[in-house]
Amino acid sequence: MAEHQCDQDYGLPEETAARVAAEMPPLVKEMVNTCGREDCFDHIGPVAIPSHAAVVDILLQARRILFPGYFTPRQIDPVALEYYLGQEMTQLYAALSQQIVLAVSHDCLRQDRACSQCTLRGHEAALVLIQRLPGLRRVLAMDVHAALEGDPAAKSADEVIFSYPGLYAVSVHRLAHVLYELGVPLLPRIMSEHAHSRTGIDIHPGADIGHRFFIDHGTGVVIGETTTIGERVRLYQGVTLGALSVPPQDVERLRHQKRHPTIEDDVIIYSGATILGGETVIGARSVIGGSVWLTESVPPDTTVLLKAPELDYRGNRSASPKR
Amino acid sequence: MAEHQCDQDYGLPEETAARVAAEMPPLVKEMVNTCGREDCFDHIGPVAIPSHAAVVDILLQARRILFPGYFTPRQIDPVALEYYLGQEMTQLYAALSQQIVLAVSHDCLRQDRACSQCTLRGHEAALVLIQRLPGLRRVLAMDVHAALEGDPAAKSADEVIFSYPGLYAVSVHRLAHVLYELGVPLLPRIMSEHAHSRTGIDIHPGADIGHRFFIDHGTGVVIGETTTIGERVRLYQGVTLGALSVPPQDVERLRHQKRHPTIEDDVIIYSGATILGGETVIGARSVIGGSVWLTESVPPDTTVLLKAPELDYRGNRSASPKR
Amino acid sequence: MAEHQCDQDYGLPEETAARVAAEMPPLVKEMVNTCGREDCFDHIGPVAIPSHAAVVDILLQARRILFPGYFTPRQIDPVALEYYLGQEMTQLYAALSQQIVLAVSHDCLRQDRACSQCTLRGHEAALVLIQRLPGLRRVLAMDVHAALEGDPAAKSADEVIFSYPGLYAVSVHRLAHVLYELGVPLLPRIMSEHAHSRTGIDIHPGADIGHRFFIDHGTGVVIGETTTIGERVRLYQGVTLGALSVPPQDVERLRHQKRHPTIEDDVIIYSGATILGGETVIGARSVIGGSVWLTESVPPDTTVLLKAPELDYRGNRSASPKR
Repeated sequence: MAEHQCDQDYGLPEETAARVAAEMPPLVKEMVNTCGREDCFDHIGPVAIPSHAAVVDILLQARRILFPGYFTPRQIDPVALEYYLGQEMTQLYAALSQQIVLAVSHDCLRQDRACSQCTLRGHEAALVLIQRLPGLRRVLAMDVHAALEGDPAAKSADEVIFSYPGLYAVSVHRLAHVLYELGVPLLPRIMSEHAHSRTGIDIHPGADIGHRFFIDHGTGVVIGETTTIGERVRLYQGVTLGALSVPPQDVERLRHQKRHPTIEDDVIIYSGATILGGETVIGARSVIGGSVWLTESVPPDTTVLLKAPELDYRGNRSASPKR
Repeated sequence: MAEHQCDQDYGLPEETAARVAAEMPPLVKEMVNTCGREDCFDHIGPVAIPSHAAVVDILLQARRILFPGYFTPRQIDPVALEYYLGQEMTQLYAALSQQIVLAVSHDCLRQDRACSQCTLRGHEAALVLIQRLPGLRRVLAMDVHAALEGDPAAKSADEVIFSYPGLYAVSVHRLAHVLYELGVPLLPRIMSEHAHSRTGIDIHPGADIGHRFFIDHGTGVVIGETTTIGERVRLYQGVTLGALSVPPQDVERLRHQKRHPTIEDDVIIYSGATILGGETVIGARSVIGGSVWLTESVPPDTTVLLKAPELDYRGNRSASPKR
Repeated sequence: MAEHQCDQDYGLPEETAARVAAEMPPLVKEMVNTCGREDCFDHIGPVAIPSHAAVVDILLQARRILFPGYFTPRQIDPVALEYYLGQEMTQLYAALSQQIVLAVSHDCLRQDRACSQCTLRGHEAALVLIQRLPGLRRVLAMDVHAALEGDPAAKSADEVIFSYPGLYAVSVHRLAHVLYELGVPLLPRIMSEHAHSRTGIDIHPGADIGHRFFIDHGTGVVIGETTTIGERVRLYQGVTLGALSVPPQDVERLRHQKRHPTIEDDVIIYSGATILGGETVIGARSVIGGSVWLTESVPPDTTVLLKAPELDYRGNRSASPKR
């Protein structure tokens, strides 16, 4: 290796340096000229835009408030708890109201409306979310219990809170859903896609999800915008609660319709099952087996299984596939 | 755009400021009062708790030690190698023993045991992991070879080490499994869920995995806690090695039983296959086809394929679906 | 809780400290001795190696250039646009050429070639990518339009740009593919696996993808190295465009052959469908239904559906599974 001839430290060859110096300015001009054109997207102008990084920070700060002491670098002394929560909640309010104002006024700009109420709307929406935090804390605790009760591999509530992707995705969803219902643009979807990126679980912020919800493993789960899910529902990895396919000409008309299924209380849906359509209702206490594909309703207390698909066993001299 | 009326910089309206000032203190009090209650989760008190960020740093540092020179900002001079590794390994030991002590003593607190041995246990466990590093280096090199041999798209060992998610997930698993076997709480699962988040590959730290293991693509793979995998096994994306469904009343009883399958040497399992149950054994050298669903054992040297599902070809005037 | 006995702050017990002091040096020596051996991987030596972190920074910087104003911490004033883009593009060129030089010279080292042209090749390749940026901007804008037209849940182009994982994965792919075609080693795959990690969408940088491409949800999508995709194609989560299985002895021979399918213009492929093989062609305007498994070609204008798999409805007293 010592003998290997390598010029990697010699810097830019003169000829190339000259080419770069000559070619860069017209390339920059060309890029400048793509801005403001119909066939490209940019956001150049006097109105600031929400920050993806700030939204992720908001989610992490909300989690520190919703599960105090789990995600802080140092332990929280009970004596200091009120100061700790007071500071975190005040900061969350400030960061959140700023991002909502940006999202709301950006949306006005896009739709060419004056937005004299943007700042007010942003602060009001942020305050509503802060008011919901105590209730969300109780709701998320129920989600933790649902995980403990549903998963034999769960060792403790702490393990669930620290590491379960399903709980992370549902925590983010419950926050994003509040903002979605308040009509805040952009932010709910940035939040849900952050959770999707971290967990592989894609819950549209519009979905309406009941208490004690548990998603195990979760990678590949898709829950569409107009899905309704009851209490104590359990999903496994790869479950899709989706829309039927849409011919391009109908996309616009369907934007405001119920396109995704309704899952009633106490339903369990195993891995890889696909349930599609806004009129599909899975009745209470039903069990949907792995890989089942459903586009019609199922009455309460039904078990739907895929009939064992025919398997083809080859290449072994023993007679039976069983052992 | 320049004419767009926007109040986004005008700050908080006076009226809202007054409302926030009035409403925030009782909200903070309400949040404080949720702490320490049965129906919420928090960790307020004198005992510190493991840090998710510190655990991720430990994994990245371990990777720098297991593949020296690949993930360091600057090249490592052979002359400095011993100093480099000495420093990294000493730091790893310090960080790891600290987090294990936190995890072990946190667990004692949860179970209301005195934990006079916690510090000792933490340091002993950290030392065991350090002692395993040279062996893990050889085992991971075999995993790299398995990727090279199994994937025609792999250009070099370097490409595998730099970018293959399967190798990342398996590297983390082999570390987490050592801690799992030592009975360290919380940390192994934080590690495995970090890898799950990065790769979409969910390997429970309890799984027992042989040499030359290769997972290609990997998104959606689930390998359960009591799975046993032999040597030279290859898996593709979306494979589940899982447990049969569990009625709620049996969750507790099943926590300590073998619930996941056994995969013998030289088995290949293609994408989307699902193999369930603690008594299911896939015999050596068997090949399980894509999307196969198995809940019973298969003898050695068997190929199991899904019988080509019936497809419905529509809407084309030509007679044959083939081209 | 206050009474809980905890020794977690007492530091390292003396006996353990002595053991660590005694055992660490030989362990470091043992690790040093694993380096440079055939059965382990390391990169110790005078040639630096590409940096994973630097490659991710390059992608984020490229995104700031391709969608100006969306991912910058502050708004961009139209007056400053040229300075802004000039600085970003010059920095991108510098970072990119440095990493390409490292990748190219590293590759020469691995193959034991002298690499007097490495620096030149790196700078030339970086310049080509910079020259492509204006064109890529237009191509990515078409991808944004395809998302808006294909997804009833998409609220605005901004939402797509900010949060759609499909757009992120395709943006990274279009950059990585330029470097792949220029023969740059290592970096394209580091880029594509970064996108895979963030989105669950695994597009090999070799894949050739036409305009107005849209992947919805995306988790679990796999697009192989020699895949060809036409214009206006739409894919859903869990679609695999893959290779037929490879007996180990054929891996080497297949490395340079077309192993993955060809998808013609205006094809839609629903979630979980698997299409395999280098000779498989999906004809223009065809629709492939969810979970379909195809290893043979399909003529243009064909709809291929899985015949509704037989379901088994149990446990409900009502006669009909419908509601």
